[in-house]
Amino acid sequence: MLVVMQQDATEAQIRAVIDRLVDLGFTVHRSTGVLHTVLGGVGPVDDIDIAVFEAMAGVKECHRIVSPYKLASRFFRPQGTIVKVGNVEIGGPKLVVMAGPCSVESEEQIEEAARIVAEGGAQILRGGAFKPRTSPYSFQGMGEEGLKIMRAAADRHGLLMISEVMDASQLPLLLKYSDILQIGARNMQNFNLLREAGKVSKPVMIKRGIAATVEELLLAAEYVMSEGNYNVMLCERGIRTFETATRNTMDVSAIPVVKKLSHLPMIGDPSHGTGRRDMVLPMARAAVAAGADGLIVEVHPDPDRALSDGAQTLNPGQFAEMMAQVRAVAAAIGRAA
Amino acid sequence: MLVVMQQDATEAQIRAVIDRLVDLGFTVHRSTGVLHTVLGGVGPVDDIDIAVFEAMAGVKECHRIVSPYKLASRFFRPQGTIVKVGNVEIGGPKLVVMAGPCSVESEEQIEEAARIVAEGGAQILRGGAFKPRTSPYSFQGMGEEGLKIMRAAADRHGLLMISEVMDASQLPLLLKYSDILQIGARNMQNFNLLREAGKVSKPVMIKRGIAATVEELLLAAEYVMSEGNYNVMLCERGIRTFETATRNTMDVSAIPVVKKLSHLPMIGDPSHGTGRRDMVLPMARAAVAAGADGLIVEVHPDPDRALSDGAQTLNPGQFAEMMAQVRAVAAAIGRAA
Amino acid sequence: MLVVMQQDATEAQIRAVIDRLVDLGFTVHRSTGVLHTVLGGVGPVDDIDIAVFEAMAGVKECHRIVSPYKLASRFFRPQGTIVKVGNVEIGGPKLVVMAGPCSVESEEQIEEAARIVAEGGAQILRGGAFKPRTSPYSFQGMGEEGLKIMRAAADRHGLLMISEVMDASQLPLLLKYSDILQIGARNMQNFNLLREAGKVSKPVMIKRGIAATVEELLLAAEYVMSEGNYNVMLCERGIRTFETATRNTMDVSAIPVVKKLSHLPMIGDPSHGTGRRDMVLPMARAAVAAGADGLIVEVHPDPDRALSDGAQTLNPGQFAEMMAQVRAVAAAIGRAA
Amino acid sequence: MLVVMQQDATEAQIRAVIDRLVDLGFTVHRSTGVLHTVLGGVGPVDDIDIAVFEAMAGVKECHRIVSPYKLASRFFRPQGTIVKVGNVEIGGPKLVVMAGPCSVESEEQIEEAARIVAEGGAQILRGGAFKPRTSPYSFQGMGEEGLKIMRAAADRHGLLMISEVMDASQLPLLLKYSDILQIGARNMQNFNLLREAGKVSKPVMIKRGIAATVEELLLAAEYVMSEGNYNVMLCERGIRTFETATRNTMDVSAIPVVKKLSHLPMIGDPSHGTGRRDMVLPMARAAVAAGADGLIVEVHPDPDRALSDGAQTLNPGQFAEMMAQVRAVAAAIGRAA
Repeated sequence: MLVVMQQDATEAQIRAVIDRLVDLGFTVHRSTGVLHTVLGGVGPVDDIDIAVFEAMAGVKECHRIVSPYKLASRFFRPQGTIVKVGNVEIGGPKLVVMAGPCSVESEEQIEEAARIVAEGGAQILRGGAFKPRTSPYSFQGMGEEGLKIMRAAADRHGLLMISEVMDASQLPLLLKYSDILQIGARNMQNFNLLREAGKVSKPVMIKRGIAATVEELLLAAEYVMSEGNYNVMLCERGIRTFETATRNTMDVSAIPVVKKLSHLPMIGDPSHGTGRRDMVLPMARAAVAAGADGLIVEVHPDPDRALSDGAQTLNPGQFAEMMAQVRAVAAAIGRAA
Repeated sequence: MLVVMQQDATEAQIRAVIDRLVDLGFTVHRSTGVLHTVLGGVGPVDDIDIAVFEAMAGVKECHRIVSPYKLASRFFRPQGTIVKVGNVEIGGPKLVVMAGPCSVESEEQIEEAARIVAEGGAQILRGGAFKPRTSPYSFQGMGEEGLKIMRAAADRHGLLMISEVMDASQLPLLLKYSDILQIGARNMQNFNLLREAGKVSKPVMIKRGIAATVEELLLAAEYVMSEGNYNVMLCERGIRTFETATRNTMDVSAIPVVKKLSHLPMIGDPSHGTGRRDMVLPMARAAVAAGADGLIVEVHPDPDRALSDGAQTLNPGQFAEMMAQVRAVAAAIGRAA
Repeated sequence: MLVVMQQDATEAQIRAVIDRLVDLGFTVHRSTGVLHTVLGGVGPVDDIDIAVFEAMAGVKECHRIVSPYKLASRFFRPQGTIVKVGNVEIGGPKLVVMAGPCSVESEEQIEEAARIVAEGGAQILRGGAFKPRTSPYSFQGMGEEGLKIMRAAADRHGLLMISEVMDASQLPLLLKYSDILQIGARNMQNFNLLREAGKVSKPVMIKRGIAATVEELLLAAEYVMSEGNYNVMLCERGIRTFETATRNTMDVSAIPVVKKLSHLPMIGDPSHGTGRRDMVLPMARAAVAAGADGLIVEVHPDPDRALSDGAQTLNPGQFAEMMAQVRAVAAAIGRAA
Repeated sequence: MLVVMQQDATEAQIRAVIDRLVDLGFTVHRSTGVLHTVLGGVGPVDDIDIAVFEAMAGVKECHRIVSPYKLASRFFRPQGTIVKVGNVEIGGPKLVVMAGPCSVESEEQIEEAARIVAEGGAQILRGGAFKPRTSPYSFQGMGEEGLKIMRAAADRHGLLMISEVMDASQLPLLLKYSDILQIGARNMQNFNLLREAGKVSKPVMIKRGIAATVEELLLAAEYVMSEGNYNVMLCERGIRTFETATRNTMDVSAIPVVKKLSHLPMIGDPSHGTGRRDMVLPMARAAVAAGADGLIVEVHPDPDRALSDGAQTLNPGQFAEMMAQVRAVAAAIGRAA
């Protein structure tokens, strides 16, 4: 149930609608747009007679939402969401780039990486301190020490930082150091983690699971948003198909599909999307051309010595070249970069 | 690194090999078979000269294991694993059936379900108290109250019980009530949960993720086993493909493939595997014919009123028919049922 | 549009209905069952008022068929189709086995294969004389010479024969030698070939394409049937998924799904379905347990020297063992073998 | 086996190498580049001692090609292939656009479509006269009459034309009217058709099958090229995955992957790639940004009345907008449009 208030609706009128929704058993989410306030009512059933609300003072229109996600739906915020972190706006006119190594490995490595990232003109430093690894015997990340040195490196270079939280128990640690919380593809349906991430205020980036439909991705966002945290962005990072030429198949079309169905910013990850260093550049261009609000890519001072994901990681020269090219593509479709 | 001891190796000889492995940085897992003790050495590298061990007293042979999983490998326990729970043996000659509703909904429902399950000759009652649901607005399960009434119903009917743990924080509760812990498909790569499940002694059943390869499933088992819990069984419950006639595509071939690669018991789930009540019976027969050690199926006193998964749930008559037919197929391939 | 005639409908009444259907622009297909004659009317539109027909003398009931396939639908022949070839009935109570080498390679090889197949109790010799090969540089088959020596070998051992037709231009040759025409997975949507195969009277077995849905498979059958050839059987031989442990993923559930949606016989191919010799036996059992009317498997006197598909081909001992085991499973589910 | 001749190799030296290759049982394909002549030797085995050739006069270097395709390999023509049709060059610096309706339906429709296509600045008119349809009851195309009126419309507007050939028997007809022969996704492994298309001189565009790997696509090209027709281009038009938000999943990464592995031009088809009109524009931009040499898109004067594929067909305004945007993206990556 979505109630769109008139442009000149008073706070009292808005309150009255909220109260009515609550009386009927709905949880109410409020979104204040430039022109209209929109009230999202989430309830166990959606079969209320909407005429009841359309007749109320200050109400412009009322919609029954049949998609399984409501707060993540484009209807809830037709103007789109801009996630603000520090002085960076994700989902606005300017393309945002997050870059850095797969794993934080040492102070020298992350310092060097941060320098490359900042010089290339990216705004956000990425890097994992807790690593989800398919094998229990692979490098599992540096933990808090990794977060600490990453924070310091980001600060030295005027960058924001994003890092992955693998379990609800790690949330306090991540909140202490990181500006954006990443929920990885393997955890896209870790519903406990999603709920807990919905109770914090820092922005969350949810990566699409390798076998998740776009609808399931939006429902994952709904889990976070239904707990009150609307600072959500989504990320396409490749799905699993029969093709083996690339490690995953980057579903570039998911970018415009999500942008149409939802108001949330959409990030493209050509590093995981292809798993091949030589494919990152063309697929970064493709993601931007398809309408991505940002990119997240892996770059390492010396990719061939990276402890994880080296095969898909750019070297500094490749990263600089990518930044130049994606800026040109962004400009071509009327976007700042 | 696997060291197979001679049949008449003494405890002192075994200890000497263990000490040597530990000195070289290996974690040692010990498996005592009918004829041979096998020592599994898991280390950061696998490039030790195995001749060192082959020369030691009491050693029969020594293998460098190149598969990414070691403890889950068939080589570690060539004779196969039998998971013992109460008086039930899973992985032995007798086919084991786990059955019950998708969700525990009420005392009456679970009591009636337990009666049907026991009368049909199944040994283990299934039912979820914590439900992973794609939408945050769907029924999420009864929680501890559900576990409590399920335990009571199982006990009244002489059944064991299996129930899903969705997060490491729920482990103490599940351990209190349930005989077997189920780790669901969405959590197959929730590595934190897998590790924690490796620290308990109760048996764990891991369901294959809908986009997980057999190798990744075995690596999930490796996570649990590497922490010391060898009471692991695996479950095929359908993978995601392009076909829409069934909700998932049950990869029946994963059953003999896992049985060949690993010593762990393998369970077939034709309910989730197909998502269609009318396909459960033929696919239960197929799973048993392919060599499954057991089945897990959904049955409900009144499936059309089930709060979840009703479309794939058998009614009591269909369940009785299935039990009769899978017994006949099991007997045909030389298996008790 | 399906018109079911009454049990005692006269030929004149049946003719009257046919004439009426033809007047309305329908092409009429007639199926004579034990109790009822069913008339399938296929037209450009399906929005005729069915009351017109229900009022006619001798008509029992009338259905508008909304599935995209009509003649292949179970409704058209509720009793099921039995394809008769020589003294073999496919789709009846008895399990039928087709076996032989992937390719006809020499007179000695096919003679030896035919002997093994006949001794094992199978009824039909399989073997390709025209081979669809992914690479233009692979062995492409012996052509007519291969068909000739295969026919002779089949006759010597009292077997029927099935062989693949790759192109409409090869039809006359295949019709000259083979009892059953096989249309391969890559040609499942070669509509020209399907139509031409619909104009002959010999039985046709259509293999499911590796990315074809069950609905598309039934529509391929509809192409053949709409030209008048109702002697069609279908074959599940594995679909392409992300899993690499087997060459394809054998969709065993397609067997009961097709049996429910259609009246056509359904064959399982565990050789192509798995691509692994060691998986053919368990998956042959699974296919039979799931309700397959027959099996098609690759067997070769010396698989390691086969010119194609050796990795998935049984040796003579494995074939004999498979025959014994599938007979036991067939008996367990009430089927002769 | 690839033999690269020196820049100043004489014709006699080249002939000597060819003769030697032929003596050893190779079929020889010759490619004359700006600097070097390359000889591709295709034989039953590839284990000849290459030193034999390296020692011959005029030979620069010699490579054993281990990929299953040889003529389609980038090594065969490192400089890339430009397919010339009339005054259009496909694979050169300029982006080429093929556009038109799915099916030729009438003289008025194709005339109007041609006008729109030409005004938009595209060079090639697309349209099907023979339509592969999943159902035998769907519109199957106008046949020769369709080709005739399409040819006339193309000529009136100064356009080239491309149309699909579904079966080898249709080749003479297509050759009479069409400038480029399209081999559709369902026929990508119709090896008979591929071979016959290799015997003509007109350019062939092969569309990737919905479950075909990139390697299989290149092997399809190899079938055509091995018969002598090197005027081949390839087309990505979406693969079949679990995602249902789009009809297919357009594998944009296949574009740079093919460009790296092969010298053949690569075309993107965002119409079939997505199956949704509203996704054609962003995915056309993405394909160009990823490096496509051209696009093929469906446009119709009145898409909602199209006899086939209307849901994915642009209207004239959308087509004009797309042309403007892809030109901007092409320019941004240094390509003319």
